[in-house]
Amino acid sequence: MIADSMVGLVKNSSVIREMFEEGNRLAKIYGAENVYDFSLGNPNVPAPEEVNKAIKEIVDTEDSVLLHGYMSNSGYEDVRNAIARSLNKRFDTHFNESNIVMTVGAAGGLNTIFKTILNPSDEVITFAPFFGEYRNYVSNYNGKLVVVSPDVTSFRPKFDEFEAKINKKTRAVIINNPNNPTGVVYSEDTIKKIADIMEKKQKELGTEIFLISDEPYRELVYDGVSVPYLTKYYDNTIVGYSYSKSLSLPGERIGYLVIPDEISDAEDMKVAASVATRILGFVNAPSLQQKVVAKCLDAKVNVEAYDKNRKALYEGLTKLGFECVKPEGAFYLWMKSPVENDTEFCNAAKKHNILMVPGSSFGGPGYVRLAYCVSYETIVNSLPHFAELAKEMGL
Amino acid sequence: MIADSMVGLVKNSSVIREMFEEGNRLAKIYGAENVYDFSLGNPNVPAPEEVNKAIKEIVDTEDSVLLHGYMSNSGYEDVRNAIARSLNKRFDTHFNESNIVMTVGAAGGLNTIFKTILNPSDEVITFAPFFGEYRNYVSNYNGKLVVVSPDVTSFRPKFDEFEAKINKKTRAVIINNPNNPTGVVYSEDTIKKIADIMEKKQKELGTEIFLISDEPYRELVYDGVSVPYLTKYYDNTIVGYSYSKSLSLPGERIGYLVIPDEISDAEDMKVAASVATRILGFVNAPSLQQKVVAKCLDAKVNVEAYDKNRKALYEGLTKLGFECVKPEGAFYLWMKSPVENDTEFCNAAKKHNILMVPGSSFGGPGYVRLAYCVSYETIVNSLPHFAELAKEMGL
Repeated sequence: MIADSMVGLVKNSSVIREMFEEGNRLAKIYGAENVYDFSLGNPNVPAPEEVNKAIKEIVDTEDSVLLHGYMSNSGYEDVRNAIARSLNKRFDTHFNESNIVMTVGAAGGLNTIFKTILNPSDEVITFAPFFGEYRNYVSNYNGKLVVVSPDVTSFRPKFDEFEAKINKKTRAVIINNPNNPTGVVYSEDTIKKIADIMEKKQKELGTEIFLISDEPYRELVYDGVSVPYLTKYYDNTIVGYSYSKSLSLPGERIGYLVIPDEISDAEDMKVAASVATRILGFVNAPSLQQKVVAKCLDAKVNVEAYDKNRKALYEGLTKLGFECVKPEGAFYLWMKSPVENDTEFCNAAKKHNILMVPGSSFGGPGYVRLAYCVSYETIVNSLPHFAELAKEMGL
Repeated sequence: MIADSMVGLVKNSSVIREMFEEGNRLAKIYGAENVYDFSLGNPNVPAPEEVNKAIKEIVDTEDSVLLHGYMSNSGYEDVRNAIARSLNKRFDTHFNESNIVMTVGAAGGLNTIFKTILNPSDEVITFAPFFGEYRNYVSNYNGKLVVVSPDVTSFRPKFDEFEAKINKKTRAVIINNPNNPTGVVYSEDTIKKIADIMEKKQKELGTEIFLISDEPYRELVYDGVSVPYLTKYYDNTIVGYSYSKSLSLPGERIGYLVIPDEISDAEDMKVAASVATRILGFVNAPSLQQKVVAKCLDAKVNVEAYDKNRKALYEGLTKLGFECVKPEGAFYLWMKSPVENDTEFCNAAKKHNILMVPGSSFGGPGYVRLAYCVSYETIVNSLPHFAELAKEMGL
């Protein structure tokens, strides 16, 4: 009775649920503290104290009808203004409230922008490995996701293949920086090269190609790595941001899109994004949370906790002989499967009470993703079990 | 540069913005208190006190990581359980948490269910006049909205036309009870007749046809009118609910879907709705607000305030010779335009500082909608201006 397009997704979702239930089953047998679940990107670091303080202050001081009521579909003007000013201060940009559309997290923002720009069978390019939901977000609007194969030495874009895949149908390129699932951060040089290729192809093809920068992990970077702000490198850039990780608010569904004035057809794009937010059923980003993030623009989650996890897991696993990409950002570690079939490897790990996600789910077969947004103890206690797994794998 | 499907919507949106700007322009000239804006369905009655109290209590007592974190895409199990139990108590149903999917308002819920069930070119039937967004929600999934013409004496469904319009392509019927824009409430007899026709057609055609009950105005009813709970009359019913009006929380985007066990293919439907919530970019309903509504299941907005407005406006306008449908629910009054062209009538009203929405926007030409979720003073003070308008119209 469900739609044809949902049949495969429901089947796939039961695979994920099986994994989840397997975790629960293991926890029941061995105790939750003896199951090492690296499968979920759900932050374990709490929201900074400013968040709950802001919630209470706002509720105590703001007019209830305005606070919980409808506002412009793009969000409260004062909130958008505060965000624009904060971005300008940090990245030397020159946005104002008209450039900001508040969204239901980054997922809501990406759907809003794809609805805004995609005609049926338009192509959106991304680089493998990539966040698996991109496939759904693009197909929601009858677009086609085109994947550039992974460079398995650096996990940075293969530029030649990228350039070759841009054609008349290419409407957008989406990058995720810092990257889920690899933890790689694209440097300024990488961004410049991407921008150069896109500029060149726009001229050659006489089309406009949007660069969509999906940045929920922007604030989670380590070792002083910096994440370039993309609107400065390419005019047709749209930024999708979320507070899910930067303020540990994934359940609250709050983020924004930046639509710069430099973009082609900027006025219509802004209005269309606002209309898309409405007609997709978001209507507007949750009102209280809009006010909250505006009050917490300088608040930070405890990134050091993630960094401590990162080091312990990366060092522990490499010492055991596993081949890992050293994460520079986000809270994921990308590890080579010692056997060709990454699902087989995940199943072997499960027998040691270790849960990981096969890289195939991200268009990166032969690898696995470990989400280290878990307690430090989980990491420390998991290492002896990884040691057994390594031995079993002949490392 | 925007998608073809968005071009018309952007143009239409500028008409609405023009109206909005006209309101602002008039307010600047004459003072906001001298502009009678009946155009927006934004509740002016504040949320009950329980809401802000619940927000603060939850923030003070719940674990931050769980409170602001991801949960199942369908929502917190305890919240869904509390809602199911509350429905069972009120309507003698027998739901449990598995029947409830928390959604980003009713708009999010309707999009979720259309994504779940619609194949391209499937038809969804509704009764004019209807909430204009249905057209967008259905076309988001490449479906086709089929409209049953209005019965302009009762504004209740024309059953013969309804039956004639059901065919092999009919996937769903959506009703809005109490109705926006007419304020009409369908009685049990009307619901039974709709259900009978649908049962008959299901058998005749050998298809499953879903009845979607869009009920954001369920709690706003007057004169003791009761709103039938549809799952009791027809097995293939899905209910879409929202707290936007019942708790005056439209900006917070919180509501739910009910998918009963009696529905065809219930297990797959529940999973598919949960997956649809995820892939459409909602991911889950805002987490804090889920907890809030679970704590406020017995709270009520001040319906008496709307009722006072309803009486004053209905009596005032009918006394002046305007022909109005007496509202039984919601906070809208549906009035016949004294001239054939409803847009022309709205333009004439604007000259008297009165803002209304042409019925054409709801598939009901020749009528206008007045949203009386405004202050009582606005209504009282508007009446002398309506009197001038009536005179001008020759009433």
